Amino acid sequence: MITSTSNPHVKWIRKLRDRDARKESGCFYAEGIRLVGEAFQLGTKIKELIYCKQILRSEFGLELVEKAKNDGLQLLEVSENVFKYLSNKEGPQGLAIIAAQKTFDLEILENEGGIWVGLEAIQDAGNLGTILRTADSAGAKGIIQIDHGIDPFDPAVIRASMGAIFSQRIIQTNLQDFLDLARRIDFSLIGTSDKAKVYYREVNYPKNTIILFGSEQKGLSENLQQICHNMVYIPMVGRSDSLNISIAAGIVLYEAVDQHYRITDQGK
Amino acid sequence: MITSTSNPHVKWIRKLRDRDARKESGCFYAEGIRLVGEAFQLGTKIKELIYCKQILRSEFGLELVEKAKNDGLQLLEVSENVFKYLSNKEGPQGLAIIAAQKTFDLEILENEGGIWVGLEAIQDAGNLGTILRTADSAGAKGIIQIDHGIDPFDPAVIRASMGAIFSQRIIQTNLQDFLDLARRIDFSLIGTSDKAKVYYREVNYPKNTIILFGSEQKGLSENLQQICHNMVYIPMVGRSDSLNISIAAGIVLYEAVDQHYRITDQGK
Repeated sequence: MITSTSNPHVKWIRKLRDRDARKESGCFYAEGIRLVGEAFQLGTKIKELIYCKQILRSEFGLELVEKAKNDGLQLLEVSENVFKYLSNKEGPQGLAIIAAQKTFDLEILENEGGIWVGLEAIQDAGNLGTILRTADSAGAKGIIQIDHGIDPFDPAVIRASMGAIFSQRIIQTNLQDFLDLARRIDFSLIGTSDKAKVYYREVNYPKNTIILFGSEQKGLSENLQQICHNMVYIPMVGRSDSLNISIAAGIVLYEAVDQHYRITDQGK
Repeated sequence: MITSTSNPHVKWIRKLRDRDARKESGCFYAEGIRLVGEAFQLGTKIKELIYCKQILRSEFGLELVEKAKNDGLQLLEVSENVFKYLSNKEGPQGLAIIAAQKTFDLEILENEGGIWVGLEAIQDAGNLGTILRTADSAGAKGIIQIDHGIDPFDPAVIRASMGAIFSQRIIQTNLQDFLDLARRIDFSLIGTSDKAKVYYREVNYPKNTIILFGSEQKGLSENLQQICHNMVYIPMVGRSDSLNISIAAGIVLYEAVDQHYRITDQGK
């Protein structure tokens, strides 16, 4: 058991809070029983499981430690002070992992249909994490980050995603590559803008759809607007002239859900 | 011009970050050109306008300072270092106000129809601020905080609300008073729960509706569920078992918008 926060490996783990350290290692840190459970269930490549017996009380959590042992995963037992030093949470649960970052190539869209969320240079970690969670709830396949934006493996994204970081596919690309591919694939491209003329509920969201949102500051770029088959708006009925981007994503994604859901599973 | 961060009045302003100081004074601090502009337009009771000439470059911002002068408002000119000391933002704009907290009595619901959002013990500042912004966008009248929750005049709520803190009415009440009033008034009460049996798009949201959401952790209490005319759910199509509360609020509020909007203003 490691009890010292000056242990070099402990220091390295904590360094994963920084984008540069994550980039260099290709790893990220995620904590919490639920998140770790999701990582196991979804076959995430877990590099190391970190646990603290003094804090970890949940039976399910302890089972995950056992499972990791049986799977031959690298285990790191740490003291309470070390776990709290590593933790990003108030009230840490005593269970965390170091996982390998997984992203997908843009080309998977040629074979993998479904609803995708395209995000152009999103800046806010809470927004991206919440969009991942919402995309998962809405049965989407994943997100496409166009021209960078916030690192999806940032601790604040992971936290807000509530496990969706493990279930949603993440594609990172640039504008030109996206434009090239978009012309080739058989997806409906639906862009959102407050200046659009079509009400967001007036268009069809077919089974293969990419819904595109611009950055918090600038909205969707002209280049992306031009390749969209439809540009839609969400009505602003009060004084505000815009919605938070994660709210806008939720509203449009759930219109897509409605169009599919009414046909298949209405009535629960 | 005040140039020292140890000036007692400057220290008092900064103390408004604490809930206790806000409670004692009945005031709150809000910054940014847009927010201050909203406060003026909406007749907010402004106690003091704080500005910094070195930072404030916007013409509209400077006009607001002039307007404050003409209105005989108390003005406080501060140096750049003092403004940054007071500011909660990266890249402050050099304009802020101290405003009087304004909340409404529950009884205004007897006279004031419309769509309202009822929130039971919401804890997260970002969520409350985003719900205020979304409620405003959806043309709602305001929010009803049942059994406390996060202070709506917290700086993080103000920031996320994007000005809606000035346009949305805020009612703070307790469960018993709300239950008593709810039985008397002619509103449709629609509660949300993942265990509900009715799809959220299958109910009517009449002109006078209160849409109720439980806390992030516990959901809507039994007592509130029992007085609801309808309990509705939002489908979870993926792995997640819940949505962020502000996303859920956006989805349900925009169903209400759709039901009203289609009749009145379809087509922009």
